[in-house]
Amino acid sequence: DFLNALHEIPPAFGASTDDLERCRLNGIVDCGDRHKRIYERAMLLVEQVRVSKGSPLVTCLLEGPSGSGKSAMAATIGINSDFPYVKIISAETMIGLSEGSKCAQIVKVFEDAYRSQLSIIILDDIERLIEYVAIGPRFSNLISQTLLVLLKRVPPKGKNLLVIGTTSEVGFLESLGICDAFAVTYHVPKLRQADARKVLEHLNVFADHDIDAAAEAIDDLPIKKIYMLIEMAAQGSHAGGAEAIYAGEGKININRFFDILGDVVSLRV
Amino acid sequence: DFLNALHEIPPAFGASTDDLERCRLNGIVDCGDRHKRIYERAMLLVEQVRVSKGSPLVTCLLEGPSGSGKSAMAATIGINSDFPYVKIISAETMIGLSEGSKCAQIVKVFEDAYRSQLSIIILDDIERLIEYVAIGPRFSNLISQTLLVLLKRVPPKGKNLLVIGTTSEVGFLESLGICDAFAVTYHVPKLRQADARKVLEHLNVFADHDIDAAAEAIDDLPIKKIYMLIEMAAQGSHAGGAEAIYAGEGKININRFFDILGDVVSLRV
Amino acid sequence: DFLNALHEIPPAFGASTDDLERCRLNGIVDCGDRHKRIYERAMLLVEQVRVSKGSPLVTCLLEGPSGSGKSAMAATIGINSDFPYVKIISAETMIGLSEGSKCAQIVKVFEDAYRSQLSIIILDDIERLIEYVAIGPRFSNLISQTLLVLLKRVPPKGKNLLVIGTTSEVGFLESLGICDAFAVTYHVPKLRQADARKVLEHLNVFADHDIDAAAEAIDDLPIKKIYMLIEMAAQGSHAGGAEAIYAGEGKININRFFDILGDVVSLRV
Amino acid sequence: DFLNALHEIPPAFGASTDDLERCRLNGIVDCGDRHKRIYERAMLLVEQVRVSKGSPLVTCLLEGPSGSGKSAMAATIGINSDFPYVKIISAETMIGLSEGSKCAQIVKVFEDAYRSQLSIIILDDIERLIEYVAIGPRFSNLISQTLLVLLKRVPPKGKNLLVIGTTSEVGFLESLGICDAFAVTYHVPKLRQADARKVLEHLNVFADHDIDAAAEAIDDLPIKKIYMLIEMAAQGSHAGGAEAIYAGEGKININRFFDILGDVVSLRV
Amino acid sequence: DFLNALHEIPPAFGASTDDLERCRLNGIVDCGDRHKRIYERAMLLVEQVRVSKGSPLVTCLLEGPSGSGKSAMAATIGINSDFPYVKIISAETMIGLSEGSKCAQIVKVFEDAYRSQLSIIILDDIERLIEYVAIGPRFSNLISQTLLVLLKRVPPKGKNLLVIGTTSEVGFLESLGICDAFAVTYHVPKLRQADARKVLEHLNVFADHDIDAAAEAIDDLPIKKIYMLIEMAAQGSHAGGAEAIYAGEGKININRFFDILGDVVSLRV
Amino acid sequence: DFLNALHEIPPAFGASTDDLERCRLNGIVDCGDRHKRIYERAMLLVEQVRVSKGSPLVTCLLEGPSGSGKSAMAATIGINSDFPYVKIISAETMIGLSEGSKCAQIVKVFEDAYRSQLSIIILDDIERLIEYVAIGPRFSNLISQTLLVLLKRVPPKGKNLLVIGTTSEVGFLESLGICDAFAVTYHVPKLRQADARKVLEHLNVFADHDIDAAAEAIDDLPIKKIYMLIEMAAQGSHAGGAEAIYAGEGKININRFFDILGDVVSLRV
Ligand SMILES: Nc1ncnc2c1ncn2[C@@H]1O[C@H](COP(=O)(O)OP(=O)(O)OP(=O)(O)O)[C@@H](O)[C@H]1O
Ligand SMILES: Nc1ncnc2c1ncn2[C@@H]1O[C@H](COP(=O)(O)OP(=O)(O)OP(=O)(O)O)[C@@H](O)[C@H]1O
Ligand SMILES: Nc1ncnc2c1ncn2[C@@H]1O[C@H](COP(=O)(O)OP(=O)(O)OP(=O)(O)O)[C@@H](O)[C@H]1O
Ligand SMILES: Nc1ncnc2c1ncn2[C@@H]1O[C@H](COP(=O)(O)OP(=O)(O)OP(=O)(O)O)[C@@H](O)[C@H]1O
Ligand SMILES: Nc1ncnc2c1ncn2[C@@H]1O[C@H](COP(=O)(O)OP(=O)(O)OP(=O)(O)O)[C@@H](O)[C@H]1O
Ligand SMILES: Nc1ncnc2c1ncn2[C@@H]1O[C@H](COP(=O)(O)OP(=O)(O)OP(=O)(O)O)[C@@H](O)[C@H]1O
Ligand SMILES: [Mg+2]
Ligand SMILES: [Mg+2]
Ligand SMILES: [Mg+2]
Ligand SMILES: [Mg+2]
Ligand SMILES: [Mg+2]
Ligand SMILES: [Mg+2]
Repeated sequence: DFLNALHEIPPAFGASTDDLERCRLNGIVDCGDRHKRIYERAMLLVEQVRVSKGSPLVTCLLEGPSGSGKSAMAATIGINSDFPYVKIISAETMIGLSEGSKCAQIVKVFEDAYRSQLSIIILDDIERLIEYVAIGPRFSNLISQTLLVLLKRVPPKGKNLLVIGTTSEVGFLESLGICDAFAVTYHVPKLRQADARKVLEHLNVFADHDIDAAAEAIDDLPIKKIYMLIEMAAQGSHAGGAEAIYAGEGKININRFFDILGDVVSLRV
Repeated sequence: DFLNALHEIPPAFGASTDDLERCRLNGIVDCGDRHKRIYERAMLLVEQVRVSKGSPLVTCLLEGPSGSGKSAMAATIGINSDFPYVKIISAETMIGLSEGSKCAQIVKVFEDAYRSQLSIIILDDIERLIEYVAIGPRFSNLISQTLLVLLKRVPPKGKNLLVIGTTSEVGFLESLGICDAFAVTYHVPKLRQADARKVLEHLNVFADHDIDAAAEAIDDLPIKKIYMLIEMAAQGSHAGGAEAIYAGEGKININRFFDILGDVVSLRV
Repeated sequence: DFLNALHEIPPAFGASTDDLERCRLNGIVDCGDRHKRIYERAMLLVEQVRVSKGSPLVTCLLEGPSGSGKSAMAATIGINSDFPYVKIISAETMIGLSEGSKCAQIVKVFEDAYRSQLSIIILDDIERLIEYVAIGPRFSNLISQTLLVLLKRVPPKGKNLLVIGTTSEVGFLESLGICDAFAVTYHVPKLRQADARKVLEHLNVFADHDIDAAAEAIDDLPIKKIYMLIEMAAQGSHAGGAEAIYAGEGKININRFFDILGDVVSLRV
Repeated sequence: DFLNALHEIPPAFGASTDDLERCRLNGIVDCGDRHKRIYERAMLLVEQVRVSKGSPLVTCLLEGPSGSGKSAMAATIGINSDFPYVKIISAETMIGLSEGSKCAQIVKVFEDAYRSQLSIIILDDIERLIEYVAIGPRFSNLISQTLLVLLKRVPPKGKNLLVIGTTSEVGFLESLGICDAFAVTYHVPKLRQADARKVLEHLNVFADHDIDAAAEAIDDLPIKKIYMLIEMAAQGSHAGGAEAIYAGEGKININRFFDILGDVVSLRV
Repeated sequence: DFLNALHEIPPAFGASTDDLERCRLNGIVDCGDRHKRIYERAMLLVEQVRVSKGSPLVTCLLEGPSGSGKSAMAATIGINSDFPYVKIISAETMIGLSEGSKCAQIVKVFEDAYRSQLSIIILDDIERLIEYVAIGPRFSNLISQTLLVLLKRVPPKGKNLLVIGTTSEVGFLESLGICDAFAVTYHVPKLRQADARKVLEHLNVFADHDIDAAAEAIDDLPIKKIYMLIEMAAQGSHAGGAEAIYAGEGKININRFFDILGDVVSLRV
Repeated sequence: DFLNALHEIPPAFGASTDDLERCRLNGIVDCGDRHKRIYERAMLLVEQVRVSKGSPLVTCLLEGPSGSGKSAMAATIGINSDFPYVKIISAETMIGLSEGSKCAQIVKVFEDAYRSQLSIIILDDIERLIEYVAIGPRFSNLISQTLLVLLKRVPPKGKNLLVIGTTSEVGFLESLGICDAFAVTYHVPKLRQADARKVLEHLNVFADHDIDAAAEAIDDLPIKKIYMLIEMAAQGSHAGGAEAIYAGEGKININRFFDILGDVVSLRV
């Protein structure tokens, strides 16, 4: 299953999976049933691509709120596929490039994939790849058109490809027609209270008598915010510093935790 | 008739029809009366072009929802025409080109066609050729103008040309005046339940007692989604894998099928 | 009168009138009183230009629905004027050119005309010359401005010029101020039933007992659609093929005609 | 007075006034009191500029409907000023130039004027100079800014300049702030019936018993339309042709006149 | 006080103040209390800049209707400051330059000022510097951003700078955030009747018995319009010409004055 | 605490902190509890970054009205962090650069920071960095995208980075999605009356019997306006000049103070 699969992952920071590992620096913890089900479905698509004769192109979109774990999941799928060609296309490596150069890089990755029998391409943060901002709205039509064509273009005979996209702007991609260009879409959610509680237990930074109160306070947060909260609350909670807490020698002060929660959440969520 | 005509097609992957064949990798199955009638009408236009003295240019637009089989039908018409010059103009071969270069390529195909006595040009996915996105909307006016002129320009004396366009954005083409530039327009529909059932029977991947339930569930889907559904449901349905199912040694688990259907359809349709 | 004038036209395909003749490949048939009156008025403008001392520039716009015969009429006026310089400016010969190059070509034609004592310039499909699409709307302001200036610029002393424009987007030209730049505007209409009937009789492709029914069905169609309809209906109407019908050896099957009419008209008009 | 002043004008077609004379090819006839008063006021501005010590720049805008005689009046003022430097800036001599080149030409004319003690610059058809179309609206901001600065820039010591602008798009210039940049604005109107009648009498192309009916029909037309009407109606009115009428050997047929009036006016006004 | 200060001004047309003097060619007359108070406040800012240790940058905006005397006042402040570096930045010297070149020139002036211990920079007609027109609206964002940064950038240690802006489009500058970038804003008004009367008396061009009537008629006009009115009315008022009036040998005809007033005011104000 | 921390700051004008010190030329006075609390929270983030193993990137936005002290606070945090790499990115040093060059400079600063174990980058006045104006609105999407990516890009292993942004246009950044890209946001407010009073006392420029009235008048002003007010009111308050007041030899005239307050506040706030 999802977690087990993940536990098998060797702490690989080798050349080919380096970019993928950067997407899950905190490792992978159990985020609950909904994350798990998406992972399983996606791994079936991996199998479909592995054995398919008739449909050499399968496409799948992971959408959900910012920080909910989409990129980490896509990277995990890529790593666990054991496909010979797994590549992440991210705006991080293309900062400041012209639209044309970005297109060329994207096309290059697809052309490379067409040369491998089994490939996965991750289009990470598609709204960032197409340089989207809500005001206007503005975006690169050149890159959008390129994606729209690539998401439909059948690989050459005998080459099978899985494309996984991630986005936190599904509404916008919908209106561009990019969503419809994916065969399936899965929603990667924020963590419900029960899921969040499991994460807190796993991290072991609260005293036993505080953990209920803490978990109750963080219903419906993305996994990323939970990590940020813990780190901030650990700061100044204990004489030995945050290190003491991570070392298990101290616990987070629950009042400090609530105080910080106000900074991080009430203002922005 | 449509299917018979199709059955006559040799599995030609030769130079000239290679691009056309790529549009119908799954072969061609009977999609019902409505698809058949459009095919027949279009073949009459082929005849009209073949014998016409007075009107050397005939134009026809195939419009309909994404994945309904427009490109496959246009390719089939082109292959079955036996015209000496049949060419598909597709955004796939022009990724990342400037508007000007795309125009030049399009014009080149028409100029080449003017040199052949009988020609068919397929303008595949016109909205993609003109780089359309709904937001804005944005599109290439240079390419639009080129198409508007080419769709009216009479070939030189003695040269007859059939232009077949395909689009899933008929409303937009209408507002550009591109629809009116075509002499006739045919709507290529999704499959009704009866048509879909025939496709399922033909594919032979369900147990006899499941086929009614399966067909009932997929009313009003485009042919492309039906194929995708079957492939996804075959995955993990049977111990022998999807291969066993395609080999006729197993059947798709109907519950798995319904489950997958939810992923593919309820979210997106 | 109009038709007689037309009958006098030698089947000239010589250098100077070649472009003009391409506008009326089907020849010219009697389209009824309204077409005739416009032709006569326009020929009076030709005379006015021929004899004028005081106003060396006369301008006239033919507007009406697509396919109503505007370009054919403008070409006919040009041919029948017997002026030494008659030139048609059409988007067909400027595909893919930049706005600047198009302007230069247009200006060149006017400069050439200023060197001839009597000239006619046809600005064919002005909306296409200015690269208009309704979405936006978009159009070339550079070319629009060029036309607005040229339509007001008085030729040099002793040189007289008639400019005839055609358009099916009169509303848009109105809003650009291009309509007001023409001294007179004539509306070239679709064919009324009575006029259409005469065309059918002249073409002689229906059996006598069918012609009433056929004519009744095609009220308010542009001449171009009528021709297209006949060609399509002739296809498959008769064992001997369309050729037999054109040769007078067969007639169009009236039911087939109605069937085709549905394709061509009900969907698009 | 206006007419007398005009009658003094020698039929000068010499180098310096050639461009100005092209604005009044039909000569100048009495268009009524309102035209006359504007002419007189403008000639006072000429005097003001001639003697002014304190305000070396005077600016005046002539606005009114298309064809009402603005350019002809501006040219007449320029010719009658006897200033050493009188120059008309018109879009006609700048067709197809870039905005930058147009600006440079405009600035050049002002720089030249600054070198003459007394100058008049006519900015003819300002909306055309700034490449205005109502759709959008679109116009050249570069040229607009240039005009806005030039209309305020004080000439060097001892050099006096009168700038006369003409426009038929006063509302638009108002919204650009160009109107306010002119010190005074005069409205050049269409001709009232009484004024039009005088013009008809002067032209002497109607029979005495027809002139009342003719004049009555053309209330509120610009002078340009009246000339066009007469020319068109003269065509085909008389056996001897239009020449006979202009030669005084025939008169315009009043019914023909009304008929033509419908073409020219009812459609467009 | 304001007037006295002005009277002290030597008729300096030397290199450094030449551009400033061009802003007040008519000299400076007393425009009333409101103008005077603004002048005094601004001169206090000059003092503040002269002695300040803590805040090396002071900024002040003069806004008001066109022709109300903003540029003349800014120039007067600059001249009277006796600062070693006083510079006016005006669109007049940058006609037709690209946005980039204009920016470079503006930045250059600030860099020069940073080298002087005490400096004044006049940003004259800011809306013209940023190429503003109301339609759109359009303006240069490059220049706007440059001004926004320069109006906040603290000069180097020991260098003090006063920036005075003028504008008649305060509403627009407000919406760009340029107004808020100024520390203080003063409204330079049109002249009230009492103020206008003083100007008329000072100019001495009306007969004693006419001056009341004249003053009554020109309530709420900018100083510039008053000067224009006088000049126009002087033309043709007297046999000896306008010269006679300025020489005190004649007076303006009050009826002529009212007549001209109608031209200048009722149409445009 | 905040003030104490500040008092420890040596008057460092050395190379590395020069840019930072320019942000607080007036030194730092106690602005009340709200400013203090933000400073303390931010210094905890500094600690978090110093000790963090897991989350190498922390981001924090200071937003609030213009002149409320955001840049001064960010600079103070940077100086007090004692991190080896502290850099401010400001539009002031990039005036007139192209968007591309600005991007390159911004990216360069991040790349440099990735080489230091502990870094702080201040993105000062983000709306100015992205060239924002409210009209349109207009802004640089290239720079916005660059910031959006950089604010999410994880530094290389072992390098920790704190990014502090400042802005007075939080609403706009919100709509660009830039706010959400920061982990926490703090609102830096205007001064309440009690806080302002403390500042006045500290500056010691009012007579004891005036200070209540003065403080009462300046509720809800940003610290910057308070300083400007004092400087302006000091001018002309006392025979010895403003210097006498700063030297403690005189006090600000309270009536003059109220008068100036009207100029600075009532017009603009
Ligand atoms: N299952 C998980 N276990 C532990 N940490 C996780 C898990 N999933 C995600 N994270 C961590 O949470 C943070 C956010 O995850 P990720 O970047 O995948 O979210 P995202 O949905 O892609 O966000 P965005 O929309 O901003 O791109 C990362 O630091 C990641 O390492
Ligand atoms: N009659 C058919 N029999 C079997 N497969 C078909 C048939 N028609 C289409 N297909 C298959 O269905 C898929 C979609 O068909 P096609 O690409 O022609 O649809 P389309 O209408 O052009 O879609 P789009 O709007 O996305 O371009 C293709 O894989 C094609 O091979
Ligand atoms: N009087 C006529 N007799 C016979 N054929 C005609 C006549 N007028 C036009 N046609 C034919 O009808 C078709 C359409 O005519 P034409 O191109 O002149 O129409 P149009 O009004 O210019 O259309 P568009 O608006 O599309 O430019 C042409 O093929 C032309 O040859
Ligand atoms: N007073 C006049 N007497 C005779 N003819 C005139 C007179 N005024 C103008 N015309 C003629 O009428 C026509 C239109 O005049 P003109 O070009 O000056 O009008 P306009 O107001 O400038 O028009 P537009 O707005 O189109 O530029 C010209 O042919 C001109 O020669
Ligand atoms: N106090 C004054 N005494 C005499 N003349 C003045 C005075 N103030 C301004 N003028 C004159 O009035 C005219 C308009 O003044 P100025 O150019 O300063 O106005 P402005 O407000 O800058 O106008 P704009 O908004 O058009 O730039 C100029 O000719 C100037 O010389
Ligand atoms: N605590 C403080 N004590 C003394 N002076 C201060 C303090 N904070 C800010 N200032 C001064 O107030 C002025 C405004 O501060 P600062 O530039 O930091 O404001 P800001 O919020 O960044 O404004 P903006 O939004 O315009 O960038 C500066 O001159 C600064 O030196
Ligand atoms: Mg992500
Ligand atoms: Mg297709
Ligand atoms: Mg035509
Ligand atoms: Mg004119
Ligand atoms: Mg000014
Ligand atoms: Mg700041």
